[in-house]
Amino acid sequence: MSTTGRPSEDDLVARFFRPLATAAGALGLVDDCAALVPPPGRELILKTDAIAAGVHFFADDPWDLVARKALRVNVSDLAAKGAEPLGWMLTLALPADWREDDLARLAQGFAEDQAAFGLSLLGGDTIRSPDGLVLSITVMGTAPVGTMVRRAAARPGDRLFVSGTLGDAALGLLLRTDPARAAAWGLDAAGRDHLLRRYLLPEPRLPLAPALRAHARAAMDLSDGLGLDLTRMCRASGVGAHVDLAALPLSASARTALAAEPGLIDRVVSGGDDYEILAAVAPERAADFEAAARTAGVPVAAIGRIEADTAVRLVESGGAEASIPLGGFRHF
Amino acid sequence: MSTTGRPSEDDLVARFFRPLATAAGALGLVDDCAALVPPPGRELILKTDAIAAGVHFFADDPWDLVARKALRVNVSDLAAKGAEPLGWMLTLALPADWREDDLARLAQGFAEDQAAFGLSLLGGDTIRSPDGLVLSITVMGTAPVGTMVRRAAARPGDRLFVSGTLGDAALGLLLRTDPARAAAWGLDAAGRDHLLRRYLLPEPRLPLAPALRAHARAAMDLSDGLGLDLTRMCRASGVGAHVDLAALPLSASARTALAAEPGLIDRVVSGGDDYEILAAVAPERAADFEAAARTAGVPVAAIGRIEADTAVRLVESGGAEASIPLGGFRHF
Repeated sequence: MSTTGRPSEDDLVARFFRPLATAAGALGLVDDCAALVPPPGRELILKTDAIAAGVHFFADDPWDLVARKALRVNVSDLAAKGAEPLGWMLTLALPADWREDDLARLAQGFAEDQAAFGLSLLGGDTIRSPDGLVLSITVMGTAPVGTMVRRAAARPGDRLFVSGTLGDAALGLLLRTDPARAAAWGLDAAGRDHLLRRYLLPEPRLPLAPALRAHARAAMDLSDGLGLDLTRMCRASGVGAHVDLAALPLSASARTALAAEPGLIDRVVSGGDDYEILAAVAPERAADFEAAARTAGVPVAAIGRIEADTAVRLVESGGAEASIPLGGFRHF
Repeated sequence: MSTTGRPSEDDLVARFFRPLATAAGALGLVDDCAALVPPPGRELILKTDAIAAGVHFFADDPWDLVARKALRVNVSDLAAKGAEPLGWMLTLALPADWREDDLARLAQGFAEDQAAFGLSLLGGDTIRSPDGLVLSITVMGTAPVGTMVRRAAARPGDRLFVSGTLGDAALGLLLRTDPARAAAWGLDAAGRDHLLRRYLLPEPRLPLAPALRAHARAAMDLSDGLGLDLTRMCRASGVGAHVDLAALPLSASARTALAAEPGLIDRVVSGGDDYEILAAVAPERAADFEAAARTAGVPVAAIGRIEADTAVRLVESGGAEASIPLGGFRHF
């Protein structure tokens, strides 16, 4: 708790974070608090998500990508709830050996993504971490009052959709810890890089938000794997689900990997870090949802249906129930 | 990143945190996000503050007190801004060796304080910490639109007030690291415990919020020491200040310690962790402010004035400028 020759917190804020405080209510980060009045007729949608070195990213990942991942895992939740991004608060716990060029990259990553997502930094705190880098973000979005797409609202008969492709990030993580696997799977460099990048940098499905608000009964983002997150949606809604394993959307890279090592389907279902959207849509709205998703430029795939029976079943093309653990990523 | 025999994050949320989600918009923490509509005519006041083991508290501090400190350092900012508490979001980074009874104490500490302050937990994230316990909180309060008391609004001639007493927590921290000092200072057990407790558990000055909103030109809470925080207020406002050192309000314990070791005045000014309020009040409102503070039951002391010259001067009773470093607590 002694003074050092490093820049002070005030210096860091002025240099790296004030430029991100674009909203008037952020008061240039000069005040202790931000002031925020949501636009008339809209409610605030709030989410907090944190990532830590050695847990959610690798200690040697470039800090601009770490920053963008931290922001994106939060924005992904806003997308699933049908919300538009508004602002964010940051807690940055810095390891003792932080370097100014890393911090500059971090700020640059935040700047790029907050501009892309329509966000303004509203405040935050920089502290010394007991060990590695930790980022905690509270993100705020807005939606017309009462329109937030809920998790607990799925009903029997609803069609289940997921956006994009599943399992890429989980396979990318596997390649980070076991790079030789890429050759064993028969992936070329582009195929390998696709999986690695999907782990490093999730793509929040914000363009899908209006379609979800208009047509989905329930939705959530997939952060801990389809198995666990679908189980959570079903438990919250008091329902079950039937998923056609063969219908799970896979990238070409994932398809190649699974052809070489079919057991990887477990990773696809339970590996986590997809940051795609899981949506339950009433059957009579399914066509409209698909059309709206197409207009938004976000691929969605129908993967099954909600059932009254509370079991969550992953079913192979032959009709047999797959024995895939639904546990998902464990955070601690 | 493997599974363990410990309770899952969902289990922890259900057992320890769901009972804290008393607001309807928290959706029982079952959803991915919370929904919040500020009361009509009021703006949201937002603050994020984090504390980490070994940096802001000791690794062996009881977790209920750690929880309350984490909440209180945030609520203290709301008080300084004239805001009423509404809700909060928590990021909890748990060390690998966390124990369920510690977590139960943590939840108990949060429960007590959020009830006392009128808060509801709205959401959060539990992650594995790379090392020690880290808590990051984003707190939300409300105030009538446009009435948030600013930091950057002090004007020459304003009277400077502080609430409570200064330096107790800084001296308490010194006693934590050097317990023999208590005897050297001639403190009895009660006097020592007062200082230790002021470090462990700050007292947010929420009852002062209406008086600040009604009468203060500028205000902030004192977290990093009067010297640094007053310098920040002056810099933000483009002014300076004259502080009468003899007017600084001291507890009986602090007075005893300073009588034995006069050099401790540096700690009083720069030690931090006071969580008292610094307010600049126009001269014609000073009496009303003092009366309102008295009605609210919060002692306030006039310690000096804002000046046009941008220097911040701490002046001894003889008129000489004191040579006390204004640096304050460094967070990393």
